[in-house]
Amino acid sequence: MLEDIPRTESYKRAITLSNMFKNKIVMDVGAGTGILSLFCAQAGAKKVYAVEASKIASIALENVKENNFADVVEVIQSRVEDLPESIKVDIIVSEWMGFYLLHESMIDSVIHARDKHLKPGGKIFPEYATLNCALCSASPLFTTNWDNIFGHKMSSMRVLERQSLMAKPQVEMLEEEDILSVSRNILTIDMNSVTVQDVSAIRSKVFIATHNSGIYQGVVLWFDVTFPEPDEENEEASAEIVQLDTSPFSPQTHWKQTIILWPEDREVEEGDIVAFELFLGRSNPESRSYVIQLSELDAATEEHPVPCECGSAKCDVVRAFLENCDDNNEDQDMLSIN
Amino acid sequence: MLEDIPRTESYKRAITLSNMFKNKIVMDVGAGTGILSLFCAQAGAKKVYAVEASKIASIALENVKENNFADVVEVIQSRVEDLPESIKVDIIVSEWMGFYLLHESMIDSVIHARDKHLKPGGKIFPEYATLNCALCSASPLFTTNWDNIFGHKMSSMRVLERQSLMAKPQVEMLEEEDILSVSRNILTIDMNSVTVQDVSAIRSKVFIATHNSGIYQGVVLWFDVTFPEPDEENEEASAEIVQLDTSPFSPQTHWKQTIILWPEDREVEEGDIVAFELFLGRSNPESRSYVIQLSELDAATEEHPVPCECGSAKCDVVRAFLENCDDNNEDQDMLSIN
Repeated sequence: MLEDIPRTESYKRAITLSNMFKNKIVMDVGAGTGILSLFCAQAGAKKVYAVEASKIASIALENVKENNFADVVEVIQSRVEDLPESIKVDIIVSEWMGFYLLHESMIDSVIHARDKHLKPGGKIFPEYATLNCALCSASPLFTTNWDNIFGHKMSSMRVLERQSLMAKPQVEMLEEEDILSVSRNILTIDMNSVTVQDVSAIRSKVFIATHNSGIYQGVVLWFDVTFPEPDEENEEASAEIVQLDTSPFSPQTHWKQTIILWPEDREVEEGDIVAFELFLGRSNPESRSYVIQLSELDAATEEHPVPCECGSAKCDVVRAFLENCDDNNEDQDMLSIN
Repeated sequence: MLEDIPRTESYKRAITLSNMFKNKIVMDVGAGTGILSLFCAQAGAKKVYAVEASKIASIALENVKENNFADVVEVIQSRVEDLPESIKVDIIVSEWMGFYLLHESMIDSVIHARDKHLKPGGKIFPEYATLNCALCSASPLFTTNWDNIFGHKMSSMRVLERQSLMAKPQVEMLEEEDILSVSRNILTIDMNSVTVQDVSAIRSKVFIATHNSGIYQGVVLWFDVTFPEPDEENEEASAEIVQLDTSPFSPQTHWKQTIILWPEDREVEEGDIVAFELFLGRSNPESRSYVIQLSELDAATEEHPVPCECGSAKCDVVRAFLENCDDNNEDQDMLSIN
C-alpha cells in the first residue's frame, strides 16, 4: 500500500481533513503496517483498533510506538471475525479493495466488522464503491510485431498470444486513448448496507455506443471509492469529498485496470452500438477469488433496457419521450415498450 | 526469448555470420518458437532438428512453414533425452541459460544431447559460459524512505524489508555505479567437456578490493556466454567472436543481474579488502533449481590464494615475486607461502 501514492494519499486526505475522527473510536480492518491507523490517530481519534491477522501486526506495533501513538492505537493480531463482540466503534476504516474491486478483496471482513462492531449511525471509510466498464483497445498487451521477428514471420503466434491473454483477466495500465466508449456503471456498493450476498454474483447487460473509431479488443473494468461527505455543520471540516479513482483518466495505482479480451479484434466506427453481458462471480461460494465471463450480445436483436443510453435513434426517442413524461409528472409505469 | 533483443540478436549474429552452418546438420535443444532453428536454416544448414518438449512445438512448425523452411527444419515434439540415438549432428544450438546462468537452466539437456548426438569435432553454440561476481550496492531494491511514510516514521520496516529481500536471490537490474569492485570469475564452463557433475555444486572463495567508496549491500552475479570462433580459413566468415554479456555494463536482458544481500549495509572505502565464500548448488541432486549461500570471511585472517589479486600489499608482493619467478622460468611449484 505504501508505494501506491494515489491510494494512500486519498485515505490520508479523507481521514485527516474530514474532522470526523476527533475523539472517536475507530477500527482499521486489515491494518497491515498500520498507516491508516496512524492517520486516524493523527486526526484525533481517541482509540484505534488496528486489526491485522498476519505477523506484520508486530511491525505495525513498532510503527505505532515510533510515532508516539501507543496510547491511542491498539494493535490486535487477529482475524477481524474473531474479535470479541463487545468492541464497538464509531468509524471503520479499511483498504479492502482488490483487482477490479472484488477479486481477492477483503469486503466480506469489512461487512462482518460493520454488522458486529459499528455503532448505529457509524461511518465507514470508504463509504461507496462503483465498478465501471468501457470498450477498449488493449494496445499495451500487443506490442510484438509478429510479421518481423528478427527477420522472420511468425503470424501463428498471434493466435497463441491471444489465447494466452484470454485465459484470465489482464491487469494492465491503459492510456486514455485506449478507451473507445463512455463508461458504464455495472455495480454500486453502499458500504452502509451491502451484504456478502449482494457481491457474490453480478450480472450486467451493457449497451454502449463507441465514441471513437478504432480497434476494439475487449472490455476494461475499473473502480472508484468515495469517502464519507464531511459534516457540513462542522466549520473546521474540509468541504472536499475525497474519491480514489482507478480509471485510465486518473493517476495510475497498483490496481491498474482489468481487461477482458474479445476472441478477435473488431474494427468499430464512431457511434457503432456494441452490446455485451458481463458476469462476475465468486469462483466458489466461500472464495474471495472471482471469475469474469464476457459474452457478446447482438445489439440489433437484444432487448434494450428502458431507458437506454446506447445512443441508437430508437432508444434516444424512447428516452426523450420518458423525460417528457417525467416533466409532465405522468406515471412512467404506464409505459410499455417492446 | 523474442522480446529480449540482446539475447536473440547475439544468437542471430553468431549463427548467421559465422558461415559454419553451410550444409551442416544441426540440433536446436529446447527450440521454443523455433527462432534459432530459423536462423540456422537461414545460415545454410541442410537439416535442423528443432527439439521442443512442450506444445509450443506445433507453433514452431507453423513458423517454420510460414518462412518456407519446412524442407530444412524438422520440428520434433519430444524431450531431447528421448530422441533416437541414431540422430547425429554437426552443431548443437541452444538457449539454455537460467538466472545467474544455472538456476532453472537446461544445461543438463544440452550436455545429454552433446554426449549422445554430437559428432566428434562438432560445435556447440554457445561454446563457453562464465559466471562472475562483484561487490555491489543494491539501490534499486531499497527505494522507500522509511523515515517519512506520508508523514510518519516506520524505521522497523527496514528490518522486515531486508529479511524479505534476503529470503531469496533478487533478480534486478543494477546500474554501473552500483558496482563497487572489479568482477571476479567464479565459474567457467567449456560446453565441449563440462559434465552435469561439474555444475552441481560450485564453491568459490573471493578476495576483492573495492574500487569505489560506498554502501556495500551484497554480491551481484551475472554471466556471459561466448559463441564459437569463426573458422579463420573460411574467407566468407565474419571475424567477430560473438558474446552475450548480462553484466550491468551491457544492454540489459531479461536475466538482469542476481543480487545476494548481506544482512546489513557496510560502508566501504576505496581499496578495502572484502572476502566471502559463495556456494551454488542444486536444491536436490535431480533438480534444475539452485540455492546460493553467501558467507563472509575475514580478509585479514583467512588464507588468500596464491597468487591473489585482492590488492593487499602482501598479496601484491607475492604476485610480483611469482611473476618475476615466471619471467626467470623458475618453477613456481617450489614456492610455499603461509
